Amino acid sequence: MSAPKKHYSIGIFDSGVGGLTVVRALMERLPLESIVYFGDTARVPYGVKSVATIEQYAAQIVDFLLRRNVKMLIVACNTMAAVALKTISAHAKGVPIIDVIEAGARAAADGRGGRIGVIGTPTTINSNAYARRIHALDPGARVYSQACPLFVPLVEEGWLDHPVTRLAAQEYLRPVLAEDIDSLVLGCTHYPLLKPLLRDVAGERVRLIDSALTAAELAAARLQQTGLAAMDAEPASYRYIVTDIPLRFQTIGERFLGRSFGEIERADW
Amino acid sequence: MSAPKKHYSIGIFDSGVGGLTVVRALMERLPLESIVYFGDTARVPYGVKSVATIEQYAAQIVDFLLRRNVKMLIVACNTMAAVALKTISAHAKGVPIIDVIEAGARAAADGRGGRIGVIGTPTTINSNAYARRIHALDPGARVYSQACPLFVPLVEEGWLDHPVTRLAAQEYLRPVLAEDIDSLVLGCTHYPLLKPLLRDVAGERVRLIDSALTAAELAAARLQQTGLAAMDAEPASYRYIVTDIPLRFQTIGERFLGRSFGEIERADW
Repeated sequence: MSAPKKHYSIGIFDSGVGGLTVVRALMERLPLESIVYFGDTARVPYGVKSVATIEQYAAQIVDFLLRRNVKMLIVACNTMAAVALKTISAHAKGVPIIDVIEAGARAAADGRGGRIGVIGTPTTINSNAYARRIHALDPGARVYSQACPLFVPLVEEGWLDHPVTRLAAQEYLRPVLAEDIDSLVLGCTHYPLLKPLLRDVAGERVRLIDSALTAAELAAARLQQTGLAAMDAEPASYRYIVTDIPLRFQTIGERFLGRSFGEIERADW
Repeated sequence: MSAPKKHYSIGIFDSGVGGLTVVRALMERLPLESIVYFGDTARVPYGVKSVATIEQYAAQIVDFLLRRNVKMLIVACNTMAAVALKTISAHAKGVPIIDVIEAGARAAADGRGGRIGVIGTPTTINSNAYARRIHALDPGARVYSQACPLFVPLVEEGWLDHPVTRLAAQEYLRPVLAEDIDSLVLGCTHYPLLKPLLRDVAGERVRLIDSALTAAELAAARLQQTGLAAMDAEPASYRYIVTDIPLRFQTIGERFLGRSFGEIERADW
């Protein structure tokens, strides 16, 4: 593979559909950039798999995307960002990497020793990856973490503003809210769809940190730094590649993306 | 492979841990029988995958179990039973097959034209497999189906008797209960763990049909018919083979099994 070029695409990958919230944020923040999205829908969810398996899958995806000329890799999957970042770096051949945990941790750690809540899937929370990265940036910060295993299925059910979801959110957030947090990191790419409900439950005083938006901001900054930002020459193109096209994929995926898909390709690996 | 023999094991398979409720029922109903359980935990859940993918996975598992000398195959996965039974038969080399949908449909269809509710995952319900098999047995029966996508994650979260689960159950069951059903088929191997809560929500008048228990009953009858029931010579042995050993597998699996695992093996395929 040759060195990354400005007209190359940004490669974004996730275990399933969740990373489409990052694609959506990126389309809005960087409308000139072309995007290749890879969703490993045949093997989702990663959160319940062992670390060795997740590393193996992450390496396969990076190799696949690099063969399609990408100039940046965005790890839009908290599970892979939490446990497989070394493997991803080892396979990335120098292409810059951004991940949702780094993005969320940077936005949360404002250097003033805040009280930060982090919610995510059990794997993400058990990995302690957010707490470690926040502390590396702001040793005075206090981090309170809570796994919310039901939020992903609730989002995929479409119960975005539903009494069941509200009750589950009240239950999950009770311990972190009791710590008087001033910000709450939504540490899963599904959670931006729950933002209105979470804002209600957390209260207006708590700043919600949406890792899709923060990843798009970080990508914009990194493209500027590396001189790899796209020029205005050609219209941006969007490709969606998945390993399986399951039932309801279109419906659920478009809810995440906030617009219609064009063609969805099935990976031929 | 040679013809099935009495001392061979019963092979039970599922996409994940759910089929362990069938293992539990079988251990109680047929204590002399040895069991090999196969859980495809690296690729769970099947319910969101395409039919072609599910067929391919089912064939791989059947081939794997047949190499381990099984005298009967129990499809303890409603998704595979709903969409991949032809593939499974084609690979079974004459070994008798029992599946949870057949077992549940037989128990529900009492020939008196009842009003039968069926709950399951979206794939199982969309396949219409229960309704078709119930009608084949009892053309006068009325079948009312309802997908309950959140029940599996709720069970795996351990919220077996929790206000969130109760609220979700009330919402999911409202339309089928409005049809004045006299029985309710729990069309997913996770649901037996929700039986006390579902009994509350459905009311005492509705007969709950637990497909783990009915599969064990059907297996007992089929072993008698085919002369393949185990003799008292040796103690029964139990093997658990999975494709991945994920976080919390032991905890969740033992909740399903109702006892401790011995060794858990990772499939070497």
